[in-house]
Amino acid sequence: MTSGNENFVIGLDFGTDTVRAVVVRVADGDEIAEAVADYPQWREQKYCDAARQQFRHHPADYLESMAAAVRGALEGRADLAGRIVGIGVDTTGSSPIPVTADGTALALHDEFAEDPDAMCILWKDHTAVAEAEEINALCRSGKFTDYTRYVGGIYSSEWYWAKILHVGRRNPKAFQAAANWVELCDWIPAILTGVDDASAVVRSRCAAGHKALWHPDFDGLPSRDWLLALDPCLGNLTTPLFTETRTSDKSAGTLTAKWAEAFGVPAGIPVAVGAFDCHMGAVGAGIEPYSLVRVMGTSTCDILVAPPEEVGDTLVRGICGQVPGSVLPDFIGFEAGQSSFGDVFAWFERLLRWGREKEVAAGTLLPRLEKEAQALPPGGYGERALDWLNGRRTPDADQTVRAAMAGLHLGSSAPSVYRALVEATAFGSRAIAERFESEGIPVKHIVAIGGIARKSPFVTQVCADVMNREIGVAASDQCCARGAAIFAATAAGQYADVHQAKAAMLSPIERTFKPDARAHAAYEALYADYLTLGAFAQDLASKSD
Amino acid sequence: MTSGNENFVIGLDFGTDTVRAVVVRVADGDEIAEAVADYPQWREQKYCDAARQQFRHHPADYLESMAAAVRGALEGRADLAGRIVGIGVDTTGSSPIPVTADGTALALHDEFAEDPDAMCILWKDHTAVAEAEEINALCRSGKFTDYTRYVGGIYSSEWYWAKILHVGRRNPKAFQAAANWVELCDWIPAILTGVDDASAVVRSRCAAGHKALWHPDFDGLPSRDWLLALDPCLGNLTTPLFTETRTSDKSAGTLTAKWAEAFGVPAGIPVAVGAFDCHMGAVGAGIEPYSLVRVMGTSTCDILVAPPEEVGDTLVRGICGQVPGSVLPDFIGFEAGQSSFGDVFAWFERLLRWGREKEVAAGTLLPRLEKEAQALPPGGYGERALDWLNGRRTPDADQTVRAAMAGLHLGSSAPSVYRALVEATAFGSRAIAERFESEGIPVKHIVAIGGIARKSPFVTQVCADVMNREIGVAASDQCCARGAAIFAATAAGQYADVHQAKAAMLSPIERTFKPDARAHAAYEALYADYLTLGAFAQDLASKSD
Repeated sequence: MTSGNENFVIGLDFGTDTVRAVVVRVADGDEIAEAVADYPQWREQKYCDAARQQFRHHPADYLESMAAAVRGALEGRADLAGRIVGIGVDTTGSSPIPVTADGTALALHDEFAEDPDAMCILWKDHTAVAEAEEINALCRSGKFTDYTRYVGGIYSSEWYWAKILHVGRRNPKAFQAAANWVELCDWIPAILTGVDDASAVVRSRCAAGHKALWHPDFDGLPSRDWLLALDPCLGNLTTPLFTETRTSDKSAGTLTAKWAEAFGVPAGIPVAVGAFDCHMGAVGAGIEPYSLVRVMGTSTCDILVAPPEEVGDTLVRGICGQVPGSVLPDFIGFEAGQSSFGDVFAWFERLLRWGREKEVAAGTLLPRLEKEAQALPPGGYGERALDWLNGRRTPDADQTVRAAMAGLHLGSSAPSVYRALVEATAFGSRAIAERFESEGIPVKHIVAIGGIARKSPFVTQVCADVMNREIGVAASDQCCARGAAIFAATAAGQYADVHQAKAAMLSPIERTFKPDARAHAAYEALYADYLTLGAFAQDLASKSD
Repeated sequence: MTSGNENFVIGLDFGTDTVRAVVVRVADGDEIAEAVADYPQWREQKYCDAARQQFRHHPADYLESMAAAVRGALEGRADLAGRIVGIGVDTTGSSPIPVTADGTALALHDEFAEDPDAMCILWKDHTAVAEAEEINALCRSGKFTDYTRYVGGIYSSEWYWAKILHVGRRNPKAFQAAANWVELCDWIPAILTGVDDASAVVRSRCAAGHKALWHPDFDGLPSRDWLLALDPCLGNLTTPLFTETRTSDKSAGTLTAKWAEAFGVPAGIPVAVGAFDCHMGAVGAGIEPYSLVRVMGTSTCDILVAPPEEVGDTLVRGICGQVPGSVLPDFIGFEAGQSSFGDVFAWFERLLRWGREKEVAAGTLLPRLEKEAQALPPGGYGERALDWLNGRRTPDADQTVRAAMAGLHLGSSAPSVYRALVEATAFGSRAIAERFESEGIPVKHIVAIGGIARKSPFVTQVCADVMNREIGVAASDQCCARGAAIFAATAAGQYADVHQAKAAMLSPIERTFKPDARAHAAYEALYADYLTLGAFAQDLASKSD
């Protein structure tokens, strides 16, 4: 890096409810300015149907809110605007968008402007449970390569192909109008760089490898025959949908004049290849080999990197994938996570707020609950719980399993039940770390980022005690945007490579939670109960299939 | 009965929180006047320790409150007071009281006035779980007669001998000062009739047979050798504690001048032999052979009678006993029940009231919860529950099992969880009826009495649907006191026998709930889930023993 570098980059972080633009100083990663904008149609839950677990974002929401967020961050900062040298993008995923041959999102065509199946199918949309099952059955049939080999052996309803297949069957009209399907993290850079050909959209290694079954060993995506075996309707797609993928330290192209004007930044600056929020968040938090970086929000996404030469042929069953270059270009990136984490606590609070939703705002009961739960011993008054209120992401993805509780009695109180739920989320975390280790990938340290990590020391301490590991908490609330900024700086040539950029720009650790040996010993028996309860809930789910 | 009989009797109903005196017309059972008094020291939960599940009543509370209740019922009714011809008594149980040789309750001696172990050990006291286990082990050892044969094969921690043994070990001083142990339902008549010798206390067939292992086939109580095998400390007792028992249609003696004055009624009137509240409640509700009368309150007590010649050698495993004459003199009386019923709903409401206990009074959330739960289909949104929040009374008593829930997800709401709990209590009810039937005792109709039966049509309807049986609800809120009055009238010679008294004085049925065939069909699969969840919870409890 040029000494005395006074340049800046923008990290754009597309979340479930809002997009955030953060202006980051290239020299040291400091977050200088930021603004948030929400998605106007999502705010009204248009195009969603919670009963079906259908969750869709209108692509117009992204364009409108992105411009507002960047404008907002730079408002009154003429000093910064002219010194922006690159843009990085992270988004939720797998959140695929159908596009026409010119790369335009289908819902941006008038004819499909109101069709939910022409929109971005948000990561948490669970309409494609049946299709995921079929993909798994086909992969296990022995008729083709097992394409799930590098995604933990189980394909999820939250992912790319399951969603494409679901739309193919449910809505042939929209499906046939789409020439291709593009992950949100690829669509935003394509928009910003003016791509006008669906086949020219730069594809992120991260999204392609973790969600679309892309792998160098397969020479890219699954074969056309495989798609046709899934359903002949997929023959409608021009295959392969793409061949090449790119890591996020590379540029996807340069900012168009139109978007430069909309943002108020210089035209022609590089836009880095996009990736998923948790992957970039891990980099923003300074991920090192064998440290598990956990984005602890409504759900968790757990990221680990390891050198390919040490991973060798090791395959980790039941996680969300292991992809060369998905997190950092020279490493295998592993992804895992829990389908609900903060959502577990929010659910319980919502239960307690029943009948007083107006008088008692969401989030206001949690501090007292937490305080009283913290005063109880491990195991509370004997209550046990599972964290699968939104199914299970890992280990061993299964959206049909549900949560359970045991050990309830007349003395069970709101704080003791809450404590059981907190412990359950920690046990779910432990199950993930144990899976990595039992499959031969050690977990040496843990770094936590995301809403829960900083807001709830109790939850983080229970995780440390249950997992018997130190947990460092990153100081920044915006590790994902910071990670995007690190890739932007790299793609813009401000550093020689992403490792140097990361070293200079990462968020420091503000606090380390150390495991308490006595608490850990107490949790050993409780973890065994968690596994027993889990086996029961799994069994119950299979029976009701 | 003398035609135009204008006599009255008093039913005294000793509950957990209050005693109620009801003045009942002999001619037709009409409840003419009543008053309630609470227990002053119990109100402050003195001598209780909820963490240990220790629940004790000071005997002085009974004397004080009983006088207040009778006085209250007769206040301003000089027309009634002089025409009272008998008193009947029903109480909770098994609620044994240690007494000295002169029959005085130990805690009424100054030296023991503050000693919880010298007081009435209330039915719901669970301090003697370990002792009950030992009694069961001894009964199954083959060294002695299996004295649990007529109490369902399992002795409970809520019962007489377990509690005596617990005090024997825990508090030798109090234990050695006690010459005998008297059930509350026997102690009150002994007090009212001036018994001054512990060995002369008239023992109720009901309490002795269902809780103290008394049976004609054993020639009374278990042997002294059996007691010594349990624990040599029991050698301190003068055995047998009693030999004879009496059914409640008989008189226990006549009212002393002192108590006649305290009550303001004629001295010398007969006091009927006492019995447990649910037994007398069943008679007050007009129990017929093979009808299951369910007292649905915080817990349930389920009573059934059958002619001895039809029962023959049939033994019903896992219930709370089958005793000749316990309910009605010419029948075998069967007792079963659920350890928590209304308590399940109260627990859930308490959970929801957390943090707003002062603003929201107990009971005020239930009507809306019930309305919203009722609007959901059987099974709610997939939630499942067990009703064992206070352990399980029957079938197969086990105070170590706890409740559980399954099928929980982010869409689970307070009403859907509440519905699962209501269904769980109905499944628990069904399990009891099924046990009777699988053991050869048909359940032909069901009559419900008690707080829940009249207050919650939703709960009663779900029970009818789950059990696929009509449930008649008695019109009186005071069936127990009315049953006590029926026995009082019989003991006072107002009727030739209790059957005639019952026919004249019973409470009519005010409403009949008919099962809905479609709902019942839906509950079949849910009941299978209930049994599965139960097997799991049972297994979890055994492992943590």
